This record gives sequence, structure tokens and C-alpha cells, in this order.
Amino acid sequence: MHIGLIGLGKMGGNMRTRLRAGGIEVTGYDRNPEVSDAASVAEMVAALPAPRTVWVMVPAGKITDSVITELGGLLEPGDLVIDGGNSRFSDDFEHAKELGEKGIDYVDAGVSGGVWGVENGYGLMVGGSAEQVERVMPVFDALRPEGPREEGFVHVGEIGAGHYAKMVHNGIEYAMMQAFAEGFELLEARKDLIKDVPGTFEAWQRGTVVRSWLLDLLVLALKEDPTLAEIEGYVEDSGEGRWTIEEAINNAVAVPTIAASIFARFVSRQEDSPAMKAVAALRNQFGGHSVKSAE
Amino acid sequence: MHIGLIGLGKMGGNMRTRLRAGGIEVTGYDRNPEVSDAASVAEMVAALPAPRTVWVMVPAGKITDSVITELGGLLEPGDLVIDGGNSRFSDDFEHAKELGEKGIDYVDAGVSGGVWGVENGYGLMVGGSAEQVERVMPVFDALRPEGPREEGFVHVGEIGAGHYAKMVHNGIEYAMMQAFAEGFELLEARKDLIKDVPGTFEAWQRGTVVRSWLLDLLVLALKEDPTLAEIEGYVEDSGEGRWTIEEAINNAVAVPTIAASIFARFVSRQEDSPAMKAVAALRNQFGGHSVKSAE
Amino acid sequence: MHIGLIGLGKMGGNMRTRLRAGGIEVTGYDRNPEVSDAASVAEMVAALPAPRTVWVMVPAGKITDSVITELGGLLEPGDLVIDGGNSRFSDDFEHAKELGEKGIDYVDAGVSGGVWGVENGYGLMVGGSAEQVERVMPVFDALRPEGPREEGFVHVGEIGAGHYAKMVHNGIEYAMMQAFAEGFELLEARKDLIKDVPGTFEAWQRGTVVRSWLLDLLVLALKEDPTLAEIEGYVEDSGEGRWTIEEAINNAVAVPTIAASIFARFVSRQEDSPAMKAVAALRNQFGGHSVKSAE
Amino acid sequence: MHIGLIGLGKMGGNMRTRLRAGGIEVTGYDRNPEVSDAASVAEMVAALPAPRTVWVMVPAGKITDSVITELGGLLEPGDLVIDGGNSRFSDDFEHAKELGEKGIDYVDAGVSGGVWGVENGYGLMVGGSAEQVERVMPVFDALRPEGPREEGFVHVGEIGAGHYAKMVHNGIEYAMMQAFAEGFELLEARKDLIKDVPGTFEAWQRGTVVRSWLLDLLVLALKEDPTLAEIEGYVEDSGEGRWTIEEAINNAVAVPTIAASIFARFVSRQEDSPAMKAVAALRNQFGGHSVKSAE
Repeated sequence: MHIGLIGLGKMGGNMRTRLRAGGIEVTGYDRNPEVSDAASVAEMVAALPAPRTVWVMVPAGKITDSVITELGGLLEPGDLVIDGGNSRFSDDFEHAKELGEKGIDYVDAGVSGGVWGVENGYGLMVGGSAEQVERVMPVFDALRPEGPREEGFVHVGEIGAGHYAKMVHNGIEYAMMQAFAEGFELLEARKDLIKDVPGTFEAWQRGTVVRSWLLDLLVLALKEDPTLAEIEGYVEDSGEGRWTIEEAINNAVAVPTIAASIFARFVSRQEDSPAMKAVAALRNQFGGHSVKSAE
Repeated sequence: MHIGLIGLGKMGGNMRTRLRAGGIEVTGYDRNPEVSDAASVAEMVAALPAPRTVWVMVPAGKITDSVITELGGLLEPGDLVIDGGNSRFSDDFEHAKELGEKGIDYVDAGVSGGVWGVENGYGLMVGGSAEQVERVMPVFDALRPEGPREEGFVHVGEIGAGHYAKMVHNGIEYAMMQAFAEGFELLEARKDLIKDVPGTFEAWQRGTVVRSWLLDLLVLALKEDPTLAEIEGYVEDSGEGRWTIEEAINNAVAVPTIAASIFARFVSRQEDSPAMKAVAALRNQFGGHSVKSAE
Repeated sequence: MHIGLIGLGKMGGNMRTRLRAGGIEVTGYDRNPEVSDAASVAEMVAALPAPRTVWVMVPAGKITDSVITELGGLLEPGDLVIDGGNSRFSDDFEHAKELGEKGIDYVDAGVSGGVWGVENGYGLMVGGSAEQVERVMPVFDALRPEGPREEGFVHVGEIGAGHYAKMVHNGIEYAMMQAFAEGFELLEARKDLIKDVPGTFEAWQRGTVVRSWLLDLLVLALKEDPTLAEIEGYVEDSGEGRWTIEEAINNAVAVPTIAASIFARFVSRQEDSPAMKAVAALRNQFGGHSVKSAE
Repeated sequence: MHIGLIGLGKMGGNMRTRLRAGGIEVTGYDRNPEVSDAASVAEMVAALPAPRTVWVMVPAGKITDSVITELGGLLEPGDLVIDGGNSRFSDDFEHAKELGEKGIDYVDAGVSGGVWGVENGYGLMVGGSAEQVERVMPVFDALRPEGPREEGFVHVGEIGAGHYAKMVHNGIEYAMMQAFAEGFELLEARKDLIKDVPGTFEAWQRGTVVRSWLLDLLVLALKEDPTLAEIEGYVEDSGEGRWTIEEAINNAVAVPTIAASIFARFVSRQEDSPAMKAVAALRNQFGGHSVKSAE
């Protein structure tokens, strides 16, 4: 099989490597000519056998929108586009409609695994028709981890279902990370008692209830920097965490741990908190409690 | 009526003023001779008519414990001690027992109102036997606000009930303050749209659902400093907020807003967050996301 | 002054009463002929002196949209529409544009006060140009509470600012209600100690830090039903609470107490919680802990 | 090596099995004669070679206290007691003191792994002196999972450190479970879009960021009951989750996800929520919103 791949950044570049290792021929395009296999999207499309398959792996939102529109102008009826980026599932409905009007098929794929995916394989959550999903199964089989297909790949439902599942996956991921983070702080807070914080996490890797890949990664991080002294507690968040909260609100689902995780990230990025200024001001007003002066 | 009052700090000093204005004779004692009416607790006790009434208004915990013990050695059977400080309700059981063994009666009183109490009166929540509470009602009447007694005073139950109610009051207070604080940050976040943040709070003082004394105080604070630019978002917490969480846990009561309020205060005091260092480290491990270097 | 008023339900009907009492002539329209002053919107418009002022007080979303569109077809350049309903502030941008293309002016007004507003007056948060806001000030003055204008009315900013401020007001309101609710449960949980829960809330009405209108209302509710035995703990939520969370997410503002409040409402409406089924299932899997069987 | 083991319930019984399989001779005692190897603790002690080692595996709190006291009367100087139950770390200080006064050594061990431990091995977190820990290392080696010792065993610090680490482990576990549970509810809420919820979890087992043992267990549970229809969302909590919150409060550590997890469990067990009754009552009071009648 021979496919096109647009976007050869940290994720896309690694995926090209894994796809090729898995026997898929890939013509990749990236704006950066140093990593690109083709000079333009048009050139990439021209290199593909019909019916064509193009995997899109670019930032969600406007960039994905414009790539979809560009592909709509270049592809032919019967061709297929897979959006493997971190698009919001509701964007899939628009993308599928836009391409569908030209007879071009569409599949959405949530991809998990980060920089380790090139080696371990990528967890895949896919939305689309059974026929289209079946058609590109060799691509999914090359990307997914070794082992039973159903443990690293799922056809979740119709278009949008793949990205919805990925969004939920990331919401869970946020809360799991926060859970370990709270545990880390609880252990650090009692250094008088806890003499080996990194060793404690390391010892949880086998046998315990919390064993997990995130735990393994925390163990790696603590081996490099046992107190994380060199890292600032400043954490970005991405669209998927935010969308998870919005969907929870839309569907009246309580998500206290996921919300707490994203709020903690917001606060981590503030020089000072307007909210806590207000609390300090209130305490000063009613109780005469002194405030710290900001300068 | 003539009572003793131990502790003439910000609260106790004001209470002495209000008690005297309300016709109660007060002999106050404080370690600070500049504000004290007596040279020692013993001298204060000696000045009181029997049966004596002594109001204790010192910091909760060890200091209150030691004052109770000292009074146990100085007072006589039939005398009465009122602990009006911010003691944990479970401490009342110990104090009542210690004094009770000597025939000295005990009443606990939660007191709310801050620095404004001297003028507005203090909200009072009292625990003890009906007989003892009745006995010192003139003191409570002098301290409580004008208006119907039941709107500023309550005999909540037996010993400990007053401080339990005060603890819950403070838990609610924490969450209300945090609620206004979140609203302040939401308004500040859209300064492009919201041209008058202080005016918005001011306009909520009549007619709206959120009208409250805390709102009035926030309006005062914003009149002094419209963006709270001069105040650091650093907020202490006191025992009562913490005990509220502990009692919630003990009684299996979900208190998400009260807990969120106290957690926000913890974070407000951190230079950097160990927890968020761990999240940043994890993101770096799995996604290759760059971290901010701490220095 | 003579205005039109569309929507004469619980809020609109009361507002007509207060407007008339304040000297504003009102021609009201409602789909329900029993309360309507006019047979149609067109008839209402025809009764108004030019330049006309029409206050819209109908449910947010599609109903407000259609009323705005209908008014666009009936009003003339120089007329003014005020949306006083609970519209999302982002809808104001659309409504103002739609009417503006026809030369019709637009003001948005957040209105707080519930069923008590007819008597107490309504807290008003207004967005629009200074000129237009000034033009309808007699209407605002009739609606707002007695007392200084700035304590019950604010011109928050340009179009949309009024509804944004109202949205934040409601977010705060949610969290304040939840705060009192958690306090209520903490008191109820220790009925062995707390002998007078309604009396405790009543005593907080004067002097304490938590005194507020919501507290007064809780006291009223507890006078009718001291343990709330007759009320089910089932709570709806409206758009404004949800939008507050969405805007918090959009602006990276941590709102843990507001979010907790809305999540508590979601859970309150569930027969059973899918999430907690999953937790029960997990405990059963790893620990052999028995689960309760659902039937 | 030959040790005594008190408590042969779900955990203790399995541990005896694994210890024996690992070459440790075990004389077990349980109140239930059907599973006990000895008729009494005294008989068990008598069967052990000096210096004796006794592993205590009974419920935390009063039962563990009484077993420790009983052992204090039966053992001799130089003997060693290991508390492997879910004791609070602060209890260890008391137990070590009580036994230490008789010359009996003490080690605390947090044990994780649930019913799967007999097969997979148990994650072990140990507190005590280096000498004593070394002395019973063969026992730990028999219990811990296959693989490098440091991935399933840690000597965390002095006495109490093992149980503190286990407490933190369980706090993390609570929040991780809640994270998956929220994800489950988010997927279930969109069954219109998500056609294969169990398959989605199954596909996360390889390659994704959330892969973990808890995920594997949820997959098992969903294989048995794909919508968890047969399980009620009613979840108990144990001391360790509660103590984690208390320690967080004591050390000023924000633990929003762990707290949210335990609060969700509290609510899951309520027939009706007093807090939400109060919110419903408040909405009724200010807005005239109808309440559901409880019967």
C-alpha cells in the first residue's frame, strides 16, 4: 500500500518511520523541505496510486481546515482522507461534509502514544464507515502496537467517534497525571519520614494497583532529576482537555478530577492569581488580616 | 454584670469595648500590659464577684489549653468559663471535663464578625447547658447585633456545638470568598469587554441574588485598589477551614467547594508546585513537550 | 416613557408591574392572550411612539433569536431593542449585528432578582453604547432597587458586557448556594450535637461573615420545612452556569467552586451514576470487594 | 525461614499461599479454625523458631491494636513483628513504642495487589531500621513480584514510612479509578456516536498514554457486563483514602483529584443528598423554581 502523509513533525515524522518499517510506502509532505518527500501537496498527490489515501497529521483547527480544503481541490472521487491529528470531533463532521460533496471519503483517527509510538506502536481510535475503515486497515495495522489488534485499535463508530474517544482518552490522561502529581507532592511533603521518593515510585511498577505507563515515565523522570528541582511547575494544556470539559458540560456529566487537572494547569501558569488577590483582599477587609504587598 | 476577659488582641480588645458599651463591667487581662486591666490572671480573677464568669479569647490550641488549666487552678466551684476563641469543637470536650472535675462550668461560643463586630455586633453560636447559657445571656446580648436575638445568637446544643457551628460557618465563608474570587478573575480575564469591574460588583449590592456582606467588603476593597494591583494573591488559612474538611471526611459529607477553597489557598502560598513539576515532567517524558527550567 | 415588552412570564410579568409602578407606560405582548396587552408583536409595535423601545424578556436561544428577527422586520431605524433575557453574551453580537444592519439599536441587560424583584427591584448589568444606555435610563431606574443607582445598576461595557457580567453573577451564585448546601449537610450530619439547624442559620443573619440574601432565603425555607424532608435533592441547571465554565476554560481561569457546583447538580439528577458503577466494578476486580447489584 | 502470620482472610490467606510457594514456612493463625494452622496465637508463637518473626495481617485500628498487644505479651526480646495491614502510619509509632518497650522489633509494610497478588506478587513499601528490614528480606522477596527487587519493593524510611507510602498509593489509586470512571461516563453519554465502549477501553491497552493495570481490569469488567448494567454505582471507601486527605490538609498539599474521588464515593452512597435539598430549596425561594417532592 502506498499513502500520502501531510505533516512530518514530531508525530508525523515518527509515524512515517513506523509505517515504512511496517511495509507501507509513504510519500510525505511537510512545509519544511528538509523533511518533506514532495515539493508540494499537489506533487505528493500526484505520486499516489488511485484510489488515493492521504493521512493528515497537522495541528488541529485552522491548519487542518486549510489542508482539508486543499485536498478537496486536489483529490478525486473515491479517494480517502484520514485526519489523524488532534481535531475536535465536531470538526470531523465539517471535514467529512466538505470532502463528501466531492465524493471523497473520510475517516477520523485518534492517535495516542507520543514520542514512544515509533517504537511501541500507536493506540488508534477510528471513526468512519466500516468499508472505509477496512480499506485502510493495513495502515492501522502498521501503526498500532504488536499484539492482538483489538488491544491497540478500535473502530469506535461513525465519523467523529474516533476523535471523541481520543478526547476522552486525553481527559483521563490529564486526571491520571494529576493523581500521580498529587501523590508526588504528598511524599515530598514528608521528606522527614519518606527517605526515598524516587524509589517509592519505582517500587510501584510491579504488583501494585497504580502500575501504569505514566508511572513508568515518572520513574524515568525521577531517575534523571530525583526531586524535579530543575523543572518549573508550569504546564500547558491542549484543546483536548478543554473540549473534554465542554462535552462533559454539554452532556451533564460530572468530571471533577478532569476539571481539577485542567484548573491546576491554568493556575500553574500564573505569575499571580487574580482570584487569590480577591480572597486576600476580603480577609483583610473583614478580619484585618494583613496582606502581602505585590511589587 | 461583671466578667473577666482574657485576651485583648484584635478580637478581644474590640469585644471589651462593645461589652462595656452594652453595660457589662469587664476586667480584662492580656500579656501585653499596655492593654491589660490586671497584672495577672490571678489579679483579674480576684477582681470578679462570685460566682465568677471568665471569657477566654486567646488563640486556639495550646494557648487556650494553658489558659483553661490556669483558670482551673484559680476559679472556684460554681464559676463559669466561656471559650469564645476559635477552638476546635473536640477541644471543648476536654476543657469542659478538666474544669468540670473542679466544679467549674463551661460554655463554648463561636464568634463571627471580625473587626467590624465592635460596631455591628458579633454573630454568636453557643454550646452548653440551658442553665449556664441563660446565666450569661446578658453578656451575649451585649455582644450580639441589634435586632431580634435569634438573628444574631443561637444556643446550638450541648458543649462543643457552638464551636462546631462556627467551624461550619467558616467553611461556608471560605467557599463564598472563593466564589467571589473566581467571579473577579472571570471579569478581569475579559477586560476587553468588561470596562468596569469594580462597578459591576458595586451594582450587585442591591437586588441581585449574590448580595451579601462579603460582596460589600469586596466593593470596599475595589474602591481602594480597583484591580487589586497592590495585593499579592497569597492567602493564609486557619484551623477552622481544615477542621471542616476533616469533619466532612469523618462524617462522609462531600464538600467540594469548601475543599477547593482551602486547596486554592495552599497553592497560593507556594513558590512553585511540586505537583505541577511532576505533571510537567510527565508531559516531557511521553510527548517530548519542553519544560520550563527552574532556576 | 412608553415601551414595548415581549414576554410576560414569571419575570416579564413582574417587570411590567414594577415598570408601571415606576411611571413607565408598558404595552406588553405574550403568546398567552390572557396576560398580553396586544394581539401580536406587530400590534404592540404599532402602539409605541417612535423612536420605539422594546424590551425582550423571553427564553434565551432560539426563542430570543426569532423574536429579534421578528422585531427586525417590524421596527424602524432609530428604534431600540433591549434583550433582558438570559442570553449568552456571544448571542448579543449576532443580535446587534442583525438589527444594526437595519439601523435598529441594541442594548443587552442582565437582570437579577428572581420573583422578589417586583418588590425589591432588579439588579441590572447593561451593555451597549453610552448614548443608547442613557436613552433608556428611565426604564432602568424604574426597574432597579431603591437607593443609589450605582448599587443596583451598572453600565458594564459595550454590547455583550451586560450578559457576560450576568453570567459571572450566576456562576458565583451557583457556588454560594453550594457553599451553604455543604454547610447544611455538615450540620445535619451531626444532629447528635447540633440540636437546632434552622436556628443556627437564622442566627447567622446579623453580625456574621456569611450574612447574605441567600442565607435569608435558606432561613425562610427552613422555617417552612426544618429538615427539608419534603424536598428532593434534585437540581436543574441553566445555561448560565454552563457558559461560565466554558468561558473559564476559554480564558484559562480556574473555577473549582463554580465547576463543583454544577457537577453536584448533574449528579443530583441521576438515578444511578455510570461513573460510580465503573469505580465499583474496578474495586470488585482488583480487591474482590462485593458490589451492590442493580435491579 | 519460618514465620507466623496472623489473619488469613482474603489477603492473608493468599499471602500464606504465595509465601509457601516461595519457600517460606508459615504457621498461620486466624479466628476461623477452618483456615487456621494453630489453635491460638500462643500456639502459633510456640511453633516458631527464635528469634521469631510474626506478620500481622488483620483489619486496621482496634483489631490490629489488640493483636499487637497480645503479641507483646507472648513474644520475647529480639523477636520481630511486621504489620502488613492497612494501618494508619501514625499507628505505627504507637505499635513500635509498645513493642519496643519489651525489646521486640517492629517493621511496617504497605502491601498492594489485591486478590491478584497471590499470582502476580505484591507491591511492598516498608518502613523500619535497615537491620530489621534486611533480616526479613526473604519474606519480602517471596511476596514481591518477579523481576528486579526495586520494581516491587522499597524500603521507604523509618517506622511508619511504609504505611505512609501505601496511604499515598491508595490516594493515587482512588483518583485514577475516578479518572477512568469519568471517561466511562463521557463515552456512555454519547452512545449515539460511540458504538463500542468496551472496545474503546480494550484498544487503550497497548500504545496509549493511559495504559495501566486499572485499565486492564476495567476491560475485564466490561467483558463480563458491557454497560455495567448489573452493578449499582455504590462505592465504599476505606481509611486510607480519608487519611490521605487529612495528611494533605496537615501538610498544606492541594489534592483536588483525590478529594474529588472520595467525595464522589460519599455521594454514591446517599439515598438523597441533604446538600442538594438545600440547593433545590434555595432555587425555589428566589426564583420560584419548582422542587421535586420527596416521598
